[in-house]
Amino acid sequence: MQKAAIIGGGVIGAGWAARFLLHGWQVHFYDPSPAALEVVNRVVKTAARWVPEIYDHLPPRGELIIAPTLAEAVAEAEWIQESVPERLPIKHATLAEIQAACSVGAVIGSSTSGFMPSELQQDALRPEQILVAHPYNPVYLLPIVECVPSSVNTAAVTDRAMSLLTKIGMKPVLLKAEVPAHVGDRLLEALWREALWLIKDGVATTEQIDDIMTHGFGLRWAQKGLFETYRVAGGTAGMRHFLEQFGPCLQWPWTKLMDVPDLDDQLISRIVEQSDAQAAGRSVSELEAERDANLVALLKALRTENAAAGAFLNQLAITGD
Amino acid sequence: MQKAAIIGGGVIGAGWAARFLLHGWQVHFYDPSPAALEVVNRVVKTAARWVPEIYDHLPPRGELIIAPTLAEAVAEAEWIQESVPERLPIKHATLAEIQAACSVGAVIGSSTSGFMPSELQQDALRPEQILVAHPYNPVYLLPIVECVPSSVNTAAVTDRAMSLLTKIGMKPVLLKAEVPAHVGDRLLEALWREALWLIKDGVATTEQIDDIMTHGFGLRWAQKGLFETYRVAGGTAGMRHFLEQFGPCLQWPWTKLMDVPDLDDQLISRIVEQSDAQAAGRSVSELEAERDANLVALLKALRTENAAAGAFLNQLAITGD
Repeated sequence: MQKAAIIGGGVIGAGWAARFLLHGWQVHFYDPSPAALEVVNRVVKTAARWVPEIYDHLPPRGELIIAPTLAEAVAEAEWIQESVPERLPIKHATLAEIQAACSVGAVIGSSTSGFMPSELQQDALRPEQILVAHPYNPVYLLPIVECVPSSVNTAAVTDRAMSLLTKIGMKPVLLKAEVPAHVGDRLLEALWREALWLIKDGVATTEQIDDIMTHGFGLRWAQKGLFETYRVAGGTAGMRHFLEQFGPCLQWPWTKLMDVPDLDDQLISRIVEQSDAQAAGRSVSELEAERDANLVALLKALRTENAAAGAFLNQLAITGD
Repeated sequence: MQKAAIIGGGVIGAGWAARFLLHGWQVHFYDPSPAALEVVNRVVKTAARWVPEIYDHLPPRGELIIAPTLAEAVAEAEWIQESVPERLPIKHATLAEIQAACSVGAVIGSSTSGFMPSELQQDALRPEQILVAHPYNPVYLLPIVECVPSSVNTAAVTDRAMSLLTKIGMKPVLLKAEVPAHVGDRLLEALWREALWLIKDGVATTEQIDDIMTHGFGLRWAQKGLFETYRVAGGTAGMRHFLEQFGPCLQWPWTKLMDVPDLDDQLISRIVEQSDAQAAGRSVSELEAERDANLVALLKALRTENAAAGAFLNQLAITGD
């Protein structure tokens, strides 16, 4: 049985623990706070209710071991996931303690959303062993994990990380450069700022903004991202035509956020090339049919959601916070 | 049988036609271009394949009538939807032609994404009859429609619009103020700008950004919007605590977009209040269970998507563009 060490509880650490356990790994959990134990037990219980519904087959559940010390947790672990609070001195101290006790061959992933791998690696014993593996909540269900190496990480380490994360049902994306907040949180932050303006200016309420998302582009983005959606929107005229039309709009006063990128020919070409590669030969009609099939499946699925949630709540006898 | 007039083809106008038809309305379609007819026939055929899967019961399909003139299309229509090109003189000329021939009691919705209702209403015969009804593509599947009145629209007109759009399976959201690009496209624009920076700076490819969306926050936002997601993330500590923590982050250099709103106590209070109202007494545990049930349903649904899309393509013998 493969062994993972989860260092730092909270919702993110507990979510990692649940994901590894349900994919058959032995999980050694360490957090000095007694409250962390309660969180991990609750999250594992919740994950065990939902995760098996996604898979036709899962291996027998692994064993959760509450480690008395960090050193005992990380000894012999293949994967060590650090999810301690987002303060750099705490990260550095924890990573030093991990490296003093763990195997040289282990991969150390950090759940950090705010720090770049090169910052985490400062003064580390073996900086090449540490990279960012940034998941999204709930970790046991959402497949995405952003893998961010710095220039000191070798391909052997990133390959190992990508392969291992795939085996626990994740969709790891290996970023090409380190930037503050990686990719997903930068996108979220931009949208969040605009949403705050809309609230502040009284254009819409939180509920209206949420409704516009869940009944609109949320359904889009659960199955086609921004670029593939625009690719479909461009139709047979193509991505380049679509982008060229879009250029002037970027200068319009739609958002309160300024300093827009220059959508010049070089950038257009790069996006066209990458979008072509991404389509991998599929026609717009094919992409459109995929999109429609997805949307139908999602809309049908959402109709049964409340009954399932209600049944689960009754089963756990949860009536409030 | 209720009668709708669709003025202006293209993907959006055709999507409106399909939605009305499949909800049992008689649709009078007008566009001077012969190409528009081809689009509407294709979109109606596609919509007829997918829309019935979402509903247990639909009324018998309405009749599609290709009107020889705009005046004949709009005569006696209860709802008139304008989807002509996004240039204000064209919009004004079309709206004038519509109002010269339509019933005084009809509602005239415009699909515009770029113009505010007060701009459309300039010099109109009956400005109070015109409002923005901005849908998202594909109109026959995505339920969202932003209803934007100006100060001259009466409650009677907006009430009628909201009620009628609900009856054709939509989720109309009545905005509280008119701003350029309404709400959804402002949010999309903010995220889009940041995505362009990430591409330009070589941090990630279009495919990686799409993967991060579809396997991450897209799945979130198909069933819980930004604010409700953050409400769940805040847990029992509450929305205020969550927002207070978030304030300083807005000043961090995460995005390339500057000019951030001041997340002061007044704004925090407003968001807290609106979020409380939105939760309508549901606890964080309840919201969390809803979220999980949703995500499972979506993830299960997405597993079968390609087979359905492939079968549909074979049935139509579509092999390319």
